[in-house]
Amino acid sequence: MADSKALTPRAQDFSAWYNELIAKAELADYSPVRGCMVIRPNGFAIWEQMQAALDGMFKDTGHENAYFPLFIPQSFLAKEAEHVEGFAPETAVVTHGGGKELEEPLVVRPTSETIIGSMFSKWIQSYRDLPVLMNQWCNVVRWEMRTRLFLRTTEFLWQEGHTAHATEAEAEEETLKMLGVYRTFQEQYLAIPVITGRKTESERFAGAMRTYALEALMQDNKALQMGTSHNLGQNFAKAFDVSFQTADGAMDHVWSTSWGCSTRMIGGMIMTHSDDNGLVCPPRLAQRQVVIVPIHKTDSERGQVLEAANALATDLKAGGLRVHVDGREGIKPGAKYYEWEARGVPFRLELGPRDLTNRSVMLARRTGGGKVSLGMEGLAATLRGEVDQMQRGLLESARARREGGTLRHPKSKEEFVDYLESGGGFVYAGWCGDPAVEAAVKEQTKATIRVLPDTEFRVGDAPTRCIWTGQPAQYEAVWARAY
Amino acid sequence: MADSKALTPRAQDFSAWYNELIAKAELADYSPVRGCMVIRPNGFAIWEQMQAALDGMFKDTGHENAYFPLFIPQSFLAKEAEHVEGFAPETAVVTHGGGKELEEPLVVRPTSETIIGSMFSKWIQSYRDLPVLMNQWCNVVRWEMRTRLFLRTTEFLWQEGHTAHATEAEAEEETLKMLGVYRTFQEQYLAIPVITGRKTESERFAGAMRTYALEALMQDNKALQMGTSHNLGQNFAKAFDVSFQTADGAMDHVWSTSWGCSTRMIGGMIMTHSDDNGLVCPPRLAQRQVVIVPIHKTDSERGQVLEAANALATDLKAGGLRVHVDGREGIKPGAKYYEWEARGVPFRLELGPRDLTNRSVMLARRTGGGKVSLGMEGLAATLRGEVDQMQRGLLESARARREGGTLRHPKSKEEFVDYLESGGGFVYAGWCGDPAVEAAVKEQTKATIRVLPDTEFRVGDAPTRCIWTGQPAQYEAVWARAY
Repeated sequence: MADSKALTPRAQDFSAWYNELIAKAELADYSPVRGCMVIRPNGFAIWEQMQAALDGMFKDTGHENAYFPLFIPQSFLAKEAEHVEGFAPETAVVTHGGGKELEEPLVVRPTSETIIGSMFSKWIQSYRDLPVLMNQWCNVVRWEMRTRLFLRTTEFLWQEGHTAHATEAEAEEETLKMLGVYRTFQEQYLAIPVITGRKTESERFAGAMRTYALEALMQDNKALQMGTSHNLGQNFAKAFDVSFQTADGAMDHVWSTSWGCSTRMIGGMIMTHSDDNGLVCPPRLAQRQVVIVPIHKTDSERGQVLEAANALATDLKAGGLRVHVDGREGIKPGAKYYEWEARGVPFRLELGPRDLTNRSVMLARRTGGGKVSLGMEGLAATLRGEVDQMQRGLLESARARREGGTLRHPKSKEEFVDYLESGGGFVYAGWCGDPAVEAAVKEQTKATIRVLPDTEFRVGDAPTRCIWTGQPAQYEAVWARAY
Repeated sequence: MADSKALTPRAQDFSAWYNELIAKAELADYSPVRGCMVIRPNGFAIWEQMQAALDGMFKDTGHENAYFPLFIPQSFLAKEAEHVEGFAPETAVVTHGGGKELEEPLVVRPTSETIIGSMFSKWIQSYRDLPVLMNQWCNVVRWEMRTRLFLRTTEFLWQEGHTAHATEAEAEEETLKMLGVYRTFQEQYLAIPVITGRKTESERFAGAMRTYALEALMQDNKALQMGTSHNLGQNFAKAFDVSFQTADGAMDHVWSTSWGCSTRMIGGMIMTHSDDNGLVCPPRLAQRQVVIVPIHKTDSERGQVLEAANALATDLKAGGLRVHVDGREGIKPGAKYYEWEARGVPFRLELGPRDLTNRSVMLARRTGGGKVSLGMEGLAATLRGEVDQMQRGLLESARARREGGTLRHPKSKEEFVDYLESGGGFVYAGWCGDPAVEAAVKEQTKATIRVLPDTEFRVGDAPTRCIWTGQPAQYEAVWARAY
């Protein structure tokens, strides 16, 4: 049973609210291992829904799943100069195996470009072998000093796609296609509106030619990176000699990509939609979309109502809904409501003796509307409609909130700084392209360039001047403080 | 494209055949990391089918998935005396993280009883919290000196169930229930007949009170352990202080179980069903149950036949079958047949211009029957029937082969030794219960007691004498050489 203590309100302490919510909804827990979390069944069920949806989208775009080793020889990282610089400092290193010191230490994978590159060089000989379109679902480890449940942990679960192509254009097309897949998933399932765009050099994946990302704005106006897609150019192909014979008989290195998103998205979901009563879970990702709470006074009522509740659940399941009957004895209906609310169940059906007589049921929505009595006739269809409506409503609310937390083209450096320092969200402003400016802005405001946004997310004329230096702007950039 | 070299026949060199088959069907590959394998898409797709079936069975029996950390503090292993003795010698140890030496080394999980025990002690307070029924799908690492693809690798994928109960009886019931789930899965999906029973003390899981296992006989008459289910008693509960208040207010330690099966089952599937032409995959686990090969001479034929093949595939998919159209150009039909045969596709449909005219298609079965022409009418239903029939046929063949490789109650020690030393399979014989006998039999014949079989697998009167010592038999045991 969920504990009955109210959450610290978001407005009072967003970080405390976040941690308390995760504990109360039993989504995750701290483990005795530094920086590692336990994903509890309520949290893991959401991840399973996410995996199923994303995996289907990956397969629909021609990708196949595979599995590569957890361990990577330390020397492999060093074969790509930028990659080792970026990842070596945060690796966990196995030095002993089977009671003996290893000749070469093994790194626990922080990401798998290197080991996969080495396999691709074995498998790919000819243009006929291309493209290779693979994905793996796995755990990765990055040694983190400051961790937060779901958002930043030493070990996390993710998927990493890895592909190889005959031409630069095909690799770029793949990189953008998968960015688009992530966007569709995040909008349609997570109900999180994202800005897509390119990362600056300083935020680029270590070893990539270009990194694209999706950025969302949380309720505390901090940005969260929701996923990345990298055009790796020929960098890893050269480091691991992944070469192929072209159609006209020449030899070339492949062009490769990688793209990933992780359990971090669960944190993004919590911080986008949830409220002071607990988790709000978009219905398409909810383990239990509908919970039926039977209401009864006498034992004979109990038998009757429970039977009807189970029959109703069977009907609704046949109608494509994920349904749970909370038939626990010794717990009052009000306590059940409170618990399922904290756990983010989208719809609650209350079913009592009078409802049986009237062939009706009381629907309570977790968000976007109060209680309403519904007829039993066609209830599954009605609820499927409710699922769609809540799903849309959550996306619209989140988009409206993001727009409210976005400043476009501040008139002055002061307005820019002020917005970021006073807890504002995204700022669109011109940037001269100098990394020193990024560093200076970060030093003063703690904000970074989240992306150089794709055209679709730019509104009106592009800024002509850098907001910091007044020099001609090379780019329009989106700044924010970020997780 | 699969390489065109024929496999070494099983009869000539079973081990070479096994390795060549895996390479040819592109199921897995060696990695540059000692003892670690890469599971390639053709192999991983089988694992995905296995996971889906098993996961559904776990959920139907009330289990929920969760995720626990990859790393375990080294001191945790030591809290259960037998456990550390069994597992410490084969662990991989992380000594450095984030560039610094760790205060306490971390073990990469060989199995998760200890870390899960520590979490259960945090979550379980009262009998109301019981039973706890969890499972996780994950990777584990056991440092192996001699590795074989799928059968024994340093890292492997598996699921491990972990449950906690209020009474010893409930824990025993769970242990046997999950053994039964594995058996159902292995018989109904893998089409592998298994013997279930209890392990002797010397083969018991390190830290368990009792270990049950499923054993299958491969085509080379060696046994393969297909999964295990452990009644852990209160051993881990005491080591990690997992205690609870009982219904009448007393305190007690929980009774726990764990059970697991792994990617090793893919190896078992290969060695049970496959032949000298390549993989034979039971249709319920095949990624592609049906491959349609279009046959045409002219370009105009090609367009027509390909269109019909795609339309047919759509129909069959709607009929619940997993179907692939092999429309590759520049590869002759015969080469395609050969490739799909090596990859274990259960059914091939050949579709040519004459078939279009006759509204028919040619069916070729991977096993259990030759070619036959079928009408298009009701083809999906016909093929679903073929799936069931092949599935049953594989199980029956494997059972007949196992029975042919089983000796029940040899008359003498000589007959017993002779059978084991001459490449026989399972031997049922009496055992006095002395571990020294197990050791002596192993020393002489390389055979071990696979299980003390459940009643169902015993036939006729139990042996009264130990086959080795002539002393009164305590048990009927099943011996074999094993992987």
